[in-house]
Amino acid sequence: MCQLLGMNCNVPTDICFSFEGFSQRGGATDEHRDGWGIAFFEGKGCRSFMDILPAVHSPVARLVQEYPIKSFNVIAHIRKATVGRVCLENTHPFVRELWGRYWIFAHNGDLKNFKLPSLADFCPVGETDSEKAFCLLLQQLKDRYPAGMPTLPALYQTLRTTAAEIATYGNFNFLLSNGKHLFAHASTQLSYIVRRHPFGHAHLVDKDMTVDFREVTTERDQVAVIATAPLTDNEFWTPIPSETLVAFQDGLPLISSSHT
Amino acid sequence: MCQLLGMNCNVPTDICFSFEGFSQRGGATDEHRDGWGIAFFEGKGCRSFMDILPAVHSPVARLVQEYPIKSFNVIAHIRKATVGRVCLENTHPFVRELWGRYWIFAHNGDLKNFKLPSLADFCPVGETDSEKAFCLLLQQLKDRYPAGMPTLPALYQTLRTTAAEIATYGNFNFLLSNGKHLFAHASTQLSYIVRRHPFGHAHLVDKDMTVDFREVTTERDQVAVIATAPLTDNEFWTPIPSETLVAFQDGLPLISSSHT
Repeated sequence: MCQLLGMNCNVPTDICFSFEGFSQRGGATDEHRDGWGIAFFEGKGCRSFMDILPAVHSPVARLVQEYPIKSFNVIAHIRKATVGRVCLENTHPFVRELWGRYWIFAHNGDLKNFKLPSLADFCPVGETDSEKAFCLLLQQLKDRYPAGMPTLPALYQTLRTTAAEIATYGNFNFLLSNGKHLFAHASTQLSYIVRRHPFGHAHLVDKDMTVDFREVTTERDQVAVIATAPLTDNEFWTPIPSETLVAFQDGLPLISSSHT
Repeated sequence: MCQLLGMNCNVPTDICFSFEGFSQRGGATDEHRDGWGIAFFEGKGCRSFMDILPAVHSPVARLVQEYPIKSFNVIAHIRKATVGRVCLENTHPFVRELWGRYWIFAHNGDLKNFKLPSLADFCPVGETDSEKAFCLLLQQLKDRYPAGMPTLPALYQTLRTTAAEIATYGNFNFLLSNGKHLFAHASTQLSYIVRRHPFGHAHLVDKDMTVDFREVTTERDQVAVIATAPLTDNEFWTPIPSETLVAFQDGLPLISSSHT
């Protein structure tokens, strides 16, 4: 199993604090040593950083911790390899283009015997079930809406239906973002927190480190953080129920429903 | 105009020395201050680093200089914006997937009045003529060979024909790689050097720095480096003639012909 981290906000926000705790799980406080990656949207552009070294030993992870990149949508992943070798093409997040937008995706869980039908437009580069699932999600979106990106409810409906089909093969905890929305699907383990006015301070689970958000926020800021397991020990994190897809926009969970 | 740097090798090689000189052109020895990017193939995987800060001031560029990533194929670009704002979605190299492989692309030059027809499979995210041209190159490959990647001569032929069409709109110096081959097309300015046994030492144009390749190579190593302008002042660089596409594999130029 791997670990996921996502952020969706209404103002560009850096993820340094959360990533500091999260990256400890890549070889220090947990066993996820088989590479890691993080992708940031900046405008319509997207840049990702990844490494096959454990996050706690990676010079690239150190850069990400120290270089505050402000973004509306971020997805990060640390890997404990189950299917697929430890190599760059099997490292999440995966990135593809659809409708003139980048889409980023990371997955935690195993999909047993998940065979991908031959798809017209999206083909996996690596060997993971995760990338196959990502390709299928995008192909279903493109097939359903060939002319361009539909409304959020329409996107949500297609993603939920496809996620439900894929989840019949196993654990399908994933994060997906198109730079505007962030979709979080839980099979077994995923929680989120929305930080907004009045802000307080937060203390990491994985490292003795505290931040006072009052010093770095304004009254209208809204930041949703989604993670496999809560990153802080003095805040209330909401578990996402099993087989549920949540759509975040502007730092808030807008649509949430179960497909069971 | 921008600057291009590419490398194609028969053994995984780091590009630290060449990038050290090249990145000086991003705001120190030359005026290309509007962002930069570099993409490395590692196996079938690909990772890119980019920034909208000038290369000489970018913490990400410093990481790339100091962290030797060994790769068979690398493409880098520093930008002087002519078409499109300075933002991440307009920063080269661009990356897309075709036939289960990543393709990376960077361009130097202006394409005047280049309108992209609506394409079935590849849509630009940013505003640059460069990304439009990249999308058209990939769409023509996919249309011509829907079943999968053909042989190098077949790839070359389709790319040369499409490049010739696009080059009627202006300067189309570009580098394109699928992780195995690297294609270099010159309209106005592009040179290459092949380093192989017996190796010597090289001295940068843009910085007083010398490397002795005998210390870091074996007899069978072959490394082709392609750049807008020669990066060293004590080696012989071969200019690529105007309107010529060169295909490199395993560090050697295998096919080269003009389309004029």
